[in-house]
Amino acid sequence: MTLLNKQIKLAKRPEGLPKPETWTLEENSLREINEGEILIKNYFLSLDPAMRGWINSSRSYIPPVQIGEVMRAGTVGEIIKSKNKSFELGTFVSGWGGVQEFTISDGLGFYKVDVKKSPPERYIGTLGMPGMTAYFGILDEGKIKKDETVLVSGAAGAVGSIVGQIAKIKGCKVIGIAGGKNKCDYIINELGFDGAIDYKNENLINGIKRNCSNGIDVFFDNVGGEILDSALIFLRKNARVVLCGAISQYNKNPIGPKNYLSLLVNRASIKGMIVFDYADRYKIAMEQIEKWIVSGEIKSKEDIYEGIENFHEIFLKLFNGKKLGKLILKIIK
Amino acid sequence: MTLLNKQIKLAKRPEGLPKPETWTLEENSLREINEGEILIKNYFLSLDPAMRGWINSSRSYIPPVQIGEVMRAGTVGEIIKSKNKSFELGTFVSGWGGVQEFTISDGLGFYKVDVKKSPPERYIGTLGMPGMTAYFGILDEGKIKKDETVLVSGAAGAVGSIVGQIAKIKGCKVIGIAGGKNKCDYIINELGFDGAIDYKNENLINGIKRNCSNGIDVFFDNVGGEILDSALIFLRKNARVVLCGAISQYNKNPIGPKNYLSLLVNRASIKGMIVFDYADRYKIAMEQIEKWIVSGEIKSKEDIYEGIENFHEIFLKLFNGKKLGKLILKIIK
Repeated sequence: MTLLNKQIKLAKRPEGLPKPETWTLEENSLREINEGEILIKNYFLSLDPAMRGWINSSRSYIPPVQIGEVMRAGTVGEIIKSKNKSFELGTFVSGWGGVQEFTISDGLGFYKVDVKKSPPERYIGTLGMPGMTAYFGILDEGKIKKDETVLVSGAAGAVGSIVGQIAKIKGCKVIGIAGGKNKCDYIINELGFDGAIDYKNENLINGIKRNCSNGIDVFFDNVGGEILDSALIFLRKNARVVLCGAISQYNKNPIGPKNYLSLLVNRASIKGMIVFDYADRYKIAMEQIEKWIVSGEIKSKEDIYEGIENFHEIFLKLFNGKKLGKLILKIIK
Repeated sequence: MTLLNKQIKLAKRPEGLPKPETWTLEENSLREINEGEILIKNYFLSLDPAMRGWINSSRSYIPPVQIGEVMRAGTVGEIIKSKNKSFELGTFVSGWGGVQEFTISDGLGFYKVDVKKSPPERYIGTLGMPGMTAYFGILDEGKIKKDETVLVSGAAGAVGSIVGQIAKIKGCKVIGIAGGKNKCDYIINELGFDGAIDYKNENLINGIKRNCSNGIDVFFDNVGGEILDSALIFLRKNARVVLCGAISQYNKNPIGPKNYLSLLVNRASIKGMIVFDYADRYKIAMEQIEKWIVSGEIKSKEDIYEGIENFHEIFLKLFNGKKLGKLILKIIK
């Protein structure tokens, strides 16, 4: 029986926010797998802000997705056929499966995940790229120390929520910036943040002043724009800004942080990070985060929607803020 | 005989570029020195871009100069009276003498300089703050390695010219940005830079592309604005931007670097530096730079003007580019 494979391909490079015509949905027959290959049935796929960057034509840290190619995405799925001795039938794997129901691969870049220990979708969230980004971002890049004040933007999101919780574990004072009362309540009441700034309903500068009366030692930025600019004003001496993302800027011509001279007088730094650089230590981080989840010190929240047909609409939730935690698309078969 | 002391005091905080009314010139009688004090006759004073920041009212790395106070400036002079056993008559000292002909001090912050080894004015230039800034900025902050490409803005200035020469000594490819043919010829022909970009007569982006075909490993920025923004485009992976100054931005509302997301994709950093943080190692740096001057590997150029009455006009040369090398005011007695 020939399997049909629904795939989302890049049809057109968007200017600004992706539109329905950015993508095409195709249904293609799957070929037989060759010697050394595996066939993966994708259960969940990860929706990440970084994906917006991958569909620009410009030079970046990985090659852009080409027009007509299946959209790149992290996935978790089950091996349903295998002609590769390293991968057994029935094993769950995570990797770059792309926005499609099935993936044929030689196994390169896919790694096994233990779905008895954690639910599969968590391996593309808190135990996947967002979790790794948070872990190495706040520890290796942010170099947080006990009693420092950490400000996190996108604090209710997949990365920000884990950043804040790790900083709490390490004894920091943690303030989150998020949009709307629900998210602010969530990060304080559920995640244990010390304070929250609702950028949709409070002046940012007042909010930071109110919460970070002694200034900011580490600002972990997922958002950019006015939020970055406001945070710069409050940097303390030797502060570190971890530049993880700039979701407010991905769909337009970016605005530069006009308060950047605060870096000078405070001997502070902004440094960009790409999680791939830490690949050789993912395993250590995963084991540590799993322990923290088991001990209850980290809460992992996935916001799961269904249906590859809804990819476009669900993807936009990254940019309109209508989600809480890690955004995931479940691929129904 | 009572000595008269001409002093430049801050009369009014400027908006934008300082104006004649920013300052007052007073002539006051000098009191007798007390036990433990010295009287210094100031021969040369240092004119530095940082001075513009010190006359703003805003929070910074040192307290602002207050209205009615003698303007802060680095000086080199001779002790002409001493009631302090640590300072002998006739000794030359450098320190914060301020914009005035004579300084009475308890000696705190003044250190002796050897005018037999180097001319006195060099101790407020290449062997003073600008030299220290260049040395620690390019070595400790820039962390240059052999064969890296280093771009320097303000390349014909007191700091930039030394930065570039040290980077050459360390085996880097060094490109300078300067305003006008004279300065560009100077940094190539006199200082040995590998290339020059005349930002007044060449498109910056073309100029950087032409000179830094493999991108930039270290950008040492004294200027900011469009120059910083253009340099960001060409950062290589793990590039370092040393934020030393932003002379193009000091007299207006600063513009943010809109290409800052280049830091993210290139895992690059911008870090601010203040030379005072390296005070415990000034001596080491001075000795090393002196050696390089003696060996001919570093050329030190002072651009000297005369007369405390001309302070305002000469100070503006920092911002209108009409000087070459370290700007110094000679105080005639």
